[in-house]
Amino acid sequence: MYRNEIGAYGVGGLNLLRSRLMTAAVAIPLLLWTIFWAPIWVLNLLILVLTYIALQEFAGMALKGVPGGTTMVTTGGMIIALTMGLAQTGIAISAGLVVCLCGVLIATLATAQDMERSVNHAAQVLLGCLYGGLLLPHFIWVRAIPDIGPDLVCLVVGTAMAGDAAGYFGGSAWGKRKLLPQVSPNKTIEGSISSLAAALVVAGLLNGLVLRVFDNVEVLLVALLINVLGQVGDLLESMLKRAYAAKDSGWIFPGHGGVLDRTDSLVLPIVFIYYYAILTGAR
Amino acid sequence: MYRNEIGAYGVGGLNLLRSRLMTAAVAIPLLLWTIFWAPIWVLNLLILVLTYIALQEFAGMALKGVPGGTTMVTTGGMIIALTMGLAQTGIAISAGLVVCLCGVLIATLATAQDMERSVNHAAQVLLGCLYGGLLLPHFIWVRAIPDIGPDLVCLVVGTAMAGDAAGYFGGSAWGKRKLLPQVSPNKTIEGSISSLAAALVVAGLLNGLVLRVFDNVEVLLVALLINVLGQVGDLLESMLKRAYAAKDSGWIFPGHGGVLDRTDSLVLPIVFIYYYAILTGAR
Repeated sequence: MYRNEIGAYGVGGLNLLRSRLMTAAVAIPLLLWTIFWAPIWVLNLLILVLTYIALQEFAGMALKGVPGGTTMVTTGGMIIALTMGLAQTGIAISAGLVVCLCGVLIATLATAQDMERSVNHAAQVLLGCLYGGLLLPHFIWVRAIPDIGPDLVCLVVGTAMAGDAAGYFGGSAWGKRKLLPQVSPNKTIEGSISSLAAALVVAGLLNGLVLRVFDNVEVLLVALLINVLGQVGDLLESMLKRAYAAKDSGWIFPGHGGVLDRTDSLVLPIVFIYYYAILTGAR
Repeated sequence: MYRNEIGAYGVGGLNLLRSRLMTAAVAIPLLLWTIFWAPIWVLNLLILVLTYIALQEFAGMALKGVPGGTTMVTTGGMIIALTMGLAQTGIAISAGLVVCLCGVLIATLATAQDMERSVNHAAQVLLGCLYGGLLLPHFIWVRAIPDIGPDLVCLVVGTAMAGDAAGYFGGSAWGKRKLLPQVSPNKTIEGSISSLAAALVVAGLLNGLVLRVFDNVEVLLVALLINVLGQVGDLLESMLKRAYAAKDSGWIFPGHGGVLDRTDSLVLPIVFIYYYAILTGAR
């Protein structure tokens, strides 16, 4: 999200910035409450609601005007998200996937006139079900890791937000060399480096002063991976938007775009931190 | 596979029939040994090898000429199949899926020039990974159900083979009204009914005289679902072939087409019987 919008849009950019800051001022305290002090179902429900909106946004981009497209993406993706979020057994997850896959294919068979077009749409639907339904529910799994779950969620969210903000301002101030112009024309290498630097500093401070969930070397490695994966996720979502010729994925957060836009730098890091924590012996 | 090929192709049809019968004469005893008496790894290995070939066939149909298409489908699908086949935990399965999804998207991001085309291919790759990698490994899970696993595999395979053969001959002899001509021009309603009738008779006899895994009413319900799902699976594969403008999926069994062709009436029934057995209290 670190584009030089202030430079490019003048007063409009300042309004956008003000709108973003106001949204953040409401969202951050709410987020902290949800992560640390709310009953666990609040976060679970929030993630499932965000997943639902993300699936609708994906369908709105990828399957605009395709009859039943939104229904298929939303239903299939929510089946995956619910079996992931509410159960954690292999049987439940594979059953959810099988129902999603076979349901999409059978619905396509039942309605297809032009096979090539319909199978193509079915493939886009499955991409949406997986992209929207598989990644975000890892928040529920991370939050549920005994003892350190809330700390890990906070570390990922804080590190990713710091990286996003620093990338945005660093890119605006110093951005010269394009990072990957065919995917995202406004991202710069300078913005990317600012993002990484801020992620390392914020993660180091957050962990060292408050959370104390990793030692001081390990947290820098983790923050490096969170930031790189966050930037990759951001590029992935830009690639999808570009492929589907969409600008912002939605409107749910004033000034921040949609859920897909806001979670693009979070989904890969939260998935990473889950398996990292499991493999290094948490729980 | 029940097309009136004898009528349509004359002597060529008879050669095809002879070739099919000879393949069957070798395959059936081997299959029985693999299901009932071989060490369990033989079936597991067979399923993983068939999955590998099926994935290659899918890529050959859907991603012909796409650089890296076969590698992505095969790698992603095998990751899913191996995590399913060798582990059965939710963590392993979700990890496999995440690696497959993110791997395909990141590989697309790293190589994409035309975003629309590349994301479209990525979606086809994911469809192939799921269709090829998610369903067949359920054979491994069914075979591993204590006490009745081999019986269930035998019932599904026997019922499906009887349905396929009866559909083929019934359709050839009496076929008049087309079943779903826009998907599969040679399938007839008469072939479909012959298939169902044979499935009920064979499943009833197989279960009543040999396997005794269900009571005599339940086995007819199960056989009905095996046959309907088998015919649906057959149509699904025809839909995919038609969408990708392919004739047979491969050449692995002389006269029988490829693995996708031979397993199309097995994959949905084996998936069904697994969850049916689990839900009704087997294991």
